[in-house]
Amino acid sequence: MDDRAQQERATPETEARIRSSFDRQGLMRHLGARITQVGPGRVHIVLPSRPEVTQQHGYFHAGATSAIADSAGGYAAFTLFPEDTDVLTVEYKINLLAPAVGDHIEAVGTVLKSGRTLTVCQLEVFGVRDGHRKLVANGQQTLIRVNVPVP
Amino acid sequence: MDDRAQQERATPETEARIRSSFDRQGLMRHLGARITQVGPGRVHIVLPSRPEVTQQHGYFHAGATSAIADSAGGYAAFTLFPEDTDVLTVEYKINLLAPAVGDHIEAVGTVLKSGRTLTVCQLEVFGVRDGHRKLVANGQQTLIRVNVPVP
Amino acid sequence: MDDRAQQERATPETEARIRSSFDRQGLMRHLGARITQVGPGRVHIVLPSRPEVTQQHGYFHAGATSAIADSAGGYAAFTLFPEDTDVLTVEYKINLLAPAVGDHIEAVGTVLKSGRTLTVCQLEVFGVRDGHRKLVANGQQTLIRVNVPVP
Amino acid sequence: MDDRAQQERATPETEARIRSSFDRQGLMRHLGARITQVGPGRVHIVLPSRPEVTQQHGYFHAGATSAIADSAGGYAAFTLFPEDTDVLTVEYKINLLAPAVGDHIEAVGTVLKSGRTLTVCQLEVFGVRDGHRKLVANGQQTLIRVNVPVP
Repeated sequence: MDDRAQQERATPETEARIRSSFDRQGLMRHLGARITQVGPGRVHIVLPSRPEVTQQHGYFHAGATSAIADSAGGYAAFTLFPEDTDVLTVEYKINLLAPAVGDHIEAVGTVLKSGRTLTVCQLEVFGVRDGHRKLVANGQQTLIRVNVPVP
Repeated sequence: MDDRAQQERATPETEARIRSSFDRQGLMRHLGARITQVGPGRVHIVLPSRPEVTQQHGYFHAGATSAIADSAGGYAAFTLFPEDTDVLTVEYKINLLAPAVGDHIEAVGTVLKSGRTLTVCQLEVFGVRDGHRKLVANGQQTLIRVNVPVP
Repeated sequence: MDDRAQQERATPETEARIRSSFDRQGLMRHLGARITQVGPGRVHIVLPSRPEVTQQHGYFHAGATSAIADSAGGYAAFTLFPEDTDVLTVEYKINLLAPAVGDHIEAVGTVLKSGRTLTVCQLEVFGVRDGHRKLVANGQQTLIRVNVPVP
Repeated sequence: MDDRAQQERATPETEARIRSSFDRQGLMRHLGARITQVGPGRVHIVLPSRPEVTQQHGYFHAGATSAIADSAGGYAAFTLFPEDTDVLTVEYKINLLAPAVGDHIEAVGTVLKSGRTLTVCQLEVFGVRDGHRKLVANGQQTLIRVNVPVP
């Protein structure tokens, strides 16, 4: 997507639905992650650097990197779903390309293919320091739409 | 590995090295995860159920499931490495097979192939309730040995 | 699965349905692959060594290794499906653990989780020489059941 | 990469080294695949439609799709390697997004991250009919550089 697409906004209803779901994710709150952009087929999640999200060398833990990448992809898929549906991650694969360092990391989930049942997303995570962004992880995710909200 | 292998213990030095590294992972402590078994080429990590590790329906978040799976695989690889080396995750892929529910989840990382540079691990995560274990996630991970400790 | 399970046979109807589908796979015939075992949730496919399936060093090409692994997993899933359904690969991930050499390679697809819509299989490929088997590739695959036969 | 990058050519030496290696891949010749573009960090491979590369419904077999994707990624990595080195696929993951149909399919391997030991590539496969291209598969691949040519 070009820059214009990146800045496109989802409808207020969609954005509200996603923020409400995100707020119910205890893990995201516990990590300190927040949604920063919700566009059609694209969601950004930011996680600030804190000792609570590190691995043994002080970098962001691959589990933290993956957690926000998984949520970003899941909500990116969700932006394209009708009401009264929900989304579950089927699987994902992620490459840790470089040590995840920075003031914060930013995960970007982007829908690559949206089908009736399955959606495939690209996952990118950037380390950001002083406004400079470096790709630190890249992945691919498969999601399933469930037509009755998971209870 | 058979049951005997599962109960085999790593040397005290190896176990100490791994527990010391694990204790430096801020994320594991923040989530409430703990290492429960360290065998040669196999490590178990347990994460108790708490609101802080959930997704929007109250299940364990895929990010929490993956985080302990990634650490279990990483330390499983590390049990077979010589001193003065360290381990980094190159990539992993994980299928979320069923909603991750239970009193706790338990990740088991098992070395499938140990090479000079690269190690491949199998990742399994079980939901455990009242002693009954159900496979909720299954994955595969590639790790790299770094010969000088990462600073 | 234990040895007994490995030798368990699918029903004659299931086996016939699978062999008929396999025979319509132009690629399998072109490579020289053949199905050697069809059990419930498990299928073996063998590919003999020939110059037509090599990469640049004379080993089996990762593409040939993956092709029979993908088919073995797909048919393993298919053994558990009702009639009037078909199977499509959603995605797979495979690690090439060692150079694939031998008189032949043998792919084993095993169902790990069978759901209403999605099935997850383990993929293993062995290099076989003089009856000695060595694991050369290991993977994981997601498949979808389609309820109307693909035309 | 932008269009200019897509059309950028590798040095004649690099291109010759890659075409020579490709010509030794028995599988590529047997399938009827050919390299159509070699740029720095990017390689295109085309596979014409023939009954010899199909699955049971007459589409391109996922194994054929993956085989050319794997080779395209491997050679894309190889374009950035020094002489007297070689490349091996560590692992890859591929999503089959749509039935692979067309006059031919075209795999594009693009280097995402080039490291001293490991390289990560993006893999894309397009179905092409009458000049119209549709993304039918998307994946991600990890490769290792081996400093002594594999014998």
